[in-house]
Amino acid sequence: MTQRKICVVVTARPSYSRIKTALKAIDEHPALDLQLVIAGPALLTRYGNAVDYIEKDGFRIAEKVFMVLEGENPTSMAKTTGLGVMELAGVFHKLQPDAVITIADRFETIATSIAASYQNIPLVHIQGGEVTGNIDEKVRHANTKLADIHLVASEDAKERVLKLGEQPDTVFNTGCPSIDIAKEVLDQPTLDFDPIEKYGGVGADIDWGKGYLVVMQHPVTTEYESARKDVETTLHAINELDIPTFWFWPNVDAGSDGTSGGIRSFREIYKPQNIRFFKNMEPEDFLRLLINAKCLIGNSSVGIRECSYLKVPVVNIGTRQHNRQRGLNVKDVSYHKELIKEAIKDRISFKQLEDEYIYGNGTAGSEIAKILATIPLNYHKTISY
Amino acid sequence: MTQRKICVVVTARPSYSRIKTALKAIDEHPALDLQLVIAGPALLTRYGNAVDYIEKDGFRIAEKVFMVLEGENPTSMAKTTGLGVMELAGVFHKLQPDAVITIADRFETIATSIAASYQNIPLVHIQGGEVTGNIDEKVRHANTKLADIHLVASEDAKERVLKLGEQPDTVFNTGCPSIDIAKEVLDQPTLDFDPIEKYGGVGADIDWGKGYLVVMQHPVTTEYESARKDVETTLHAINELDIPTFWFWPNVDAGSDGTSGGIRSFREIYKPQNIRFFKNMEPEDFLRLLINAKCLIGNSSVGIRECSYLKVPVVNIGTRQHNRQRGLNVKDVSYHKELIKEAIKDRISFKQLEDEYIYGNGTAGSEIAKILATIPLNYHKTISY
Amino acid sequence: MTQRKICVVVTARPSYSRIKTALKAIDEHPALDLQLVIAGPALLTRYGNAVDYIEKDGFRIAEKVFMVLEGENPTSMAKTTGLGVMELAGVFHKLQPDAVITIADRFETIATSIAASYQNIPLVHIQGGEVTGNIDEKVRHANTKLADIHLVASEDAKERVLKLGEQPDTVFNTGCPSIDIAKEVLDQPTLDFDPIEKYGGVGADIDWGKGYLVVMQHPVTTEYESARKDVETTLHAINELDIPTFWFWPNVDAGSDGTSGGIRSFREIYKPQNIRFFKNMEPEDFLRLLINAKCLIGNSSVGIRECSYLKVPVVNIGTRQHNRQRGLNVKDVSYHKELIKEAIKDRISFKQLEDEYIYGNGTAGSEIAKILATIPLNYHKTISY
Amino acid sequence: MTQRKICVVVTARPSYSRIKTALKAIDEHPALDLQLVIAGPALLTRYGNAVDYIEKDGFRIAEKVFMVLEGENPTSMAKTTGLGVMELAGVFHKLQPDAVITIADRFETIATSIAASYQNIPLVHIQGGEVTGNIDEKVRHANTKLADIHLVASEDAKERVLKLGEQPDTVFNTGCPSIDIAKEVLDQPTLDFDPIEKYGGVGADIDWGKGYLVVMQHPVTTEYESARKDVETTLHAINELDIPTFWFWPNVDAGSDGTSGGIRSFREIYKPQNIRFFKNMEPEDFLRLLINAKCLIGNSSVGIRECSYLKVPVVNIGTRQHNRQRGLNVKDVSYHKELIKEAIKDRISFKQLEDEYIYGNGTAGSEIAKILATIPLNYHKTISY
Repeated sequence: MTQRKICVVVTARPSYSRIKTALKAIDEHPALDLQLVIAGPALLTRYGNAVDYIEKDGFRIAEKVFMVLEGENPTSMAKTTGLGVMELAGVFHKLQPDAVITIADRFETIATSIAASYQNIPLVHIQGGEVTGNIDEKVRHANTKLADIHLVASEDAKERVLKLGEQPDTVFNTGCPSIDIAKEVLDQPTLDFDPIEKYGGVGADIDWGKGYLVVMQHPVTTEYESARKDVETTLHAINELDIPTFWFWPNVDAGSDGTSGGIRSFREIYKPQNIRFFKNMEPEDFLRLLINAKCLIGNSSVGIRECSYLKVPVVNIGTRQHNRQRGLNVKDVSYHKELIKEAIKDRISFKQLEDEYIYGNGTAGSEIAKILATIPLNYHKTISY
Repeated sequence: MTQRKICVVVTARPSYSRIKTALKAIDEHPALDLQLVIAGPALLTRYGNAVDYIEKDGFRIAEKVFMVLEGENPTSMAKTTGLGVMELAGVFHKLQPDAVITIADRFETIATSIAASYQNIPLVHIQGGEVTGNIDEKVRHANTKLADIHLVASEDAKERVLKLGEQPDTVFNTGCPSIDIAKEVLDQPTLDFDPIEKYGGVGADIDWGKGYLVVMQHPVTTEYESARKDVETTLHAINELDIPTFWFWPNVDAGSDGTSGGIRSFREIYKPQNIRFFKNMEPEDFLRLLINAKCLIGNSSVGIRECSYLKVPVVNIGTRQHNRQRGLNVKDVSYHKELIKEAIKDRISFKQLEDEYIYGNGTAGSEIAKILATIPLNYHKTISY
Repeated sequence: MTQRKICVVVTARPSYSRIKTALKAIDEHPALDLQLVIAGPALLTRYGNAVDYIEKDGFRIAEKVFMVLEGENPTSMAKTTGLGVMELAGVFHKLQPDAVITIADRFETIATSIAASYQNIPLVHIQGGEVTGNIDEKVRHANTKLADIHLVASEDAKERVLKLGEQPDTVFNTGCPSIDIAKEVLDQPTLDFDPIEKYGGVGADIDWGKGYLVVMQHPVTTEYESARKDVETTLHAINELDIPTFWFWPNVDAGSDGTSGGIRSFREIYKPQNIRFFKNMEPEDFLRLLINAKCLIGNSSVGIRECSYLKVPVVNIGTRQHNRQRGLNVKDVSYHKELIKEAIKDRISFKQLEDEYIYGNGTAGSEIAKILATIPLNYHKTISY
Repeated sequence: MTQRKICVVVTARPSYSRIKTALKAIDEHPALDLQLVIAGPALLTRYGNAVDYIEKDGFRIAEKVFMVLEGENPTSMAKTTGLGVMELAGVFHKLQPDAVITIADRFETIATSIAASYQNIPLVHIQGGEVTGNIDEKVRHANTKLADIHLVASEDAKERVLKLGEQPDTVFNTGCPSIDIAKEVLDQPTLDFDPIEKYGGVGADIDWGKGYLVVMQHPVTTEYESARKDVETTLHAINELDIPTFWFWPNVDAGSDGTSGGIRSFREIYKPQNIRFFKNMEPEDFLRLLINAKCLIGNSSVGIRECSYLKVPVVNIGTRQHNRQRGLNVKDVSYHKELIKEAIKDRISFKQLEDEYIYGNGTAGSEIAKILATIPLNYHKTISY
């Protein structure tokens, strides 16, 4: 039997967590042949070297695509995307996949969508149908309109993709593969490693044994000049609370200079005594860190998604996760130092009892592989209304 | 008062006809400053040199963007688009427009959309919300999801854009600017020039004085290998009818080689005695040619749009205009020689009496300028559901 | 034993003739592994589809690289080169050759040189050290300065490369592989096919049996606006002589529009009765056509190189072959109709008796393979003075 | 009188120092119009933001060109160059300069050379004819072969350019503009600022008042994997000497990750108590820092060039400045910790008395402007032998 060649393009560390169990399930499925392409920031040291984790997980990489144009401003973001289209067009032409998978809504994901759909390769979009409040919003729904098959992560998202005029027989709620990993980790929730010993990091030598916070704050693309001010607000709030804190650097985006620069100069000036900074961790370690944390603070989608399943208290700051369906664990707050401090105190004493399965129950990866093995693959579609 | 800088990107001859009266209205509006960018095939001799007509019409061109990668296969189509994103990103960065206009659904129009939206420039999409049946379909709706303001050409289209989740206060039915030109031409409908004398063309020295056909057939992107077969079917049908015919070469698209190659070899082998081939004409001349034609044959959207307003009989072949709202003047037919011949005979004797204004009543250009002068310009949007 | 991977980049029809026997010798050499990359105009229908001939000759193509940006003006020529660097950098990164070969001096050959040398891959330059009079001159010597090994075609050229500061143990006069083909063809010189029957062509149905001319005229890059005028001069001269003529279209270059346009409009207006136009022929057929011709007219290097070995009379027009070492067979003339006609008449009655081996004696291909198999491969060099 | 438009492309901080007084002289010359283009690393924060200094110096910037592709490996270096050709081709097409200036031998300078020469714009190469030992060597001489006019910095260099076959009336020894700045600074040699107060930097709060070292070490492109090992050797040597040291980060190059990474991890592990790290300084401040230093250590060309004129003792490590003509002030040493320490001790006690003018006597800027105002501008050249 000829296997279907499924080409997946991973461009960033967080996208990898969102697709990892699906990659494994595709790789192991007898009817499927995985072609894994690593592109953009996922290849770069200063964005956490996702490629190293991917190779360590045992995946064979079919192609590496360098496409990030330096500048970290909106113009270079656009040019990076254009370059991505050019490079990925060549890659798909060579690999001749039966279907291409593009993931979620990072700005460069539309490069995958164009390079595939313009070459008449059936395009699968993972995690469409969600709502946020910036350029990701535009990219996500444009990906949906370029895609032929839609594997979404919640009922909410499924309904939205259908309203966008997609044919019902091409839209499936598989749940999110990130929950698959969360499920595995929840079976062995103990923090079985010393984060500082294992990952190093820079900054204070914090004493995290009696409880700690985790912070993960990304710049918001369309407000890119205020990125520095925003991160400073959070830094001051955390510093004043004086609880041991693991802080993660942002991934690439226009404005990451603002966020990173803000962190760097804060460190030089205030020399915070209870914060340690990390680039990234292996997904499982990171989840175990979260499970045992007093609270996650910032604007990462991990707080909305995995933490809902894991029942980790979250203080979600600002507009980045605006409109995304969230669980009982999340408290929303704006960029105001005192409000952030209060919200953290509130969450530290919060205890969630009920289970919630908004983004799936831990079987997304195998669901995705099963659908890809059998669904008719077309690249010709018409709007449903 | 500071004028709003409105940057319009024109990439092809037919797009120019679809926007010309709006360009004029923007140029003349006291609150608006037109920045006209000519890009891609519109600059190339073998696609009809649209740029010459544009300059002759008196427009000042702010930038010319060469971006067409040779090859005329799906891979080079994708790469052309990627290159377009890179080039246009630089152009917008330099021109710093207050809004950018992208037109309709040609494959390279998404380059304009990405280059603008990724740089947080409000994006206006003209002629969204329509339906066809190939890559254009994907591109058009992706443009809608990247755009902030929607100026559509029919009620049908307006309703569809709203269903796609766009905010009602950003969607306007202005009609199509191509109808504005049709209206002007209809005031002086006489064919006041000799097409052969004025435009040359190649092929037979046809005697068109007692009636003639016009043919305009484009390759259909996703069926690109059958382009040659399709055009041969039409060529045989027309040749057998033996009525004087003006035939227009296709514009660039993956597969134009197929169509163009089909025409070239047909000419060498069959030496058709009643067909003359043209690259293109000035829009007004072309419309006058249509008004006085017995019938338009092919798959051009002109048959659906202008010819409805002008009441010119049309034989529409194949799937290219599939699902597009059409008037009484159109007869649809598949690629079958005898069916095409019959349909043409049917249309030649057809006479339409009732007026139809499906795509506007001739004021689209000034409507568009008026909206652009006053509408709030944002680049931040969220889906309406 | 591990074979040395030798990557050769062929970008145009004439370059292929200049390397073909070397490709074969590399392919057959037990210590060498040929990686053949076809790039740029060699892939395009309207420049003669060299790729078809290459595949028909039995070569396996490792990569096809589309890189020609449409426009055919100096700006698109430069952009094509930049695009070529980007694409070829990725190709070499993937193929990991032990050495890369760049051929002669076409504008896009420097893309090969940069993509290889910047990645620390030993670069071999074929046919450096010659002299011409335009952008090729700059490109050729820049290629020499980027290259590590130099395989030149004449003593003249060898001396020049040494003067350019290259180390003597890296410079070899192998002769030109095009002479290898000429040698084989000369063993069976009879014109054993009907050119019109086999290749078609367009134009007059000439009666070539009692003798004919061959014309091959390329635009000269730096004089690109006069390309049209130049070709018209030659066209008028040939037309007035009224001898059956095989005329070959130019290959891609800035200005080919001028030359091609000049030919097209001349055909429409003057309908020449004794000229037939061809895109290209298989190299062996073309040489046989030359051997039996009364005279070759134009500015092709074939007149300087192969025709010297074959003793075919040549009228060389204009500056394109300026300063290139030439044989007794060549008569130089400027773009002046009457002078061209006179020179042709002079050459038709010319008879060369002595042998000349300026560009080798027919063993270049195997010489090249032998050197590549054994020479030390370095990418670190310093000027010799 | 029409001014000659002279377009200068500056791509890096050190190139700016090498051209600054010439920029000023061109800007002020009545017959010349300066078009200043800033491209590549010169625009990026992490390579020292040269653009800020340039703007502060009062120059108007005609275009900013983002072209650095992330990756910092040889492949991205090549792709950056290809992208540079594409972008600069568009810039020159728009600015329509009468001549373009490319500076020295950084890898991306060939992008300027190709974009200009392929568009038939006369190309001026500054600081050709020198000798080093890596990819710069190839780039520099290729620039010479693409250029029409050569303004070199020493007699040695002039002789070499002539040997490369350039016409004598196009080669001029103007001296190096960097010496012009050195001359001005030497008139007021006192260190009139506190480097830490003015520039911050990171690392130890060194007590530099009683004497200090300066270190500037760049990765060597073709040995890019050993960059980290090399910088560690120097770091250990300096750390063990325990003399207050100002250390400057490297500029972009393949391997700068190695050098930068080496510095970063050394800092974390060894916490050096007498080294402070800086990104860069204004050229005048930097020179004043050098004049008052005990010794400059590393592989920067500043040690060869400015320091010769300024009589600052230099320990030059490794092959990067190999073969460049040097003065009495320089001691060469290989990457060996103890040898480096000894050489530094030797230099600290060294005192140079004789003047040396190897790279000019301080009038290069005005010389360059004078030549550009009057020399015939051609783009057509032929090798001299």
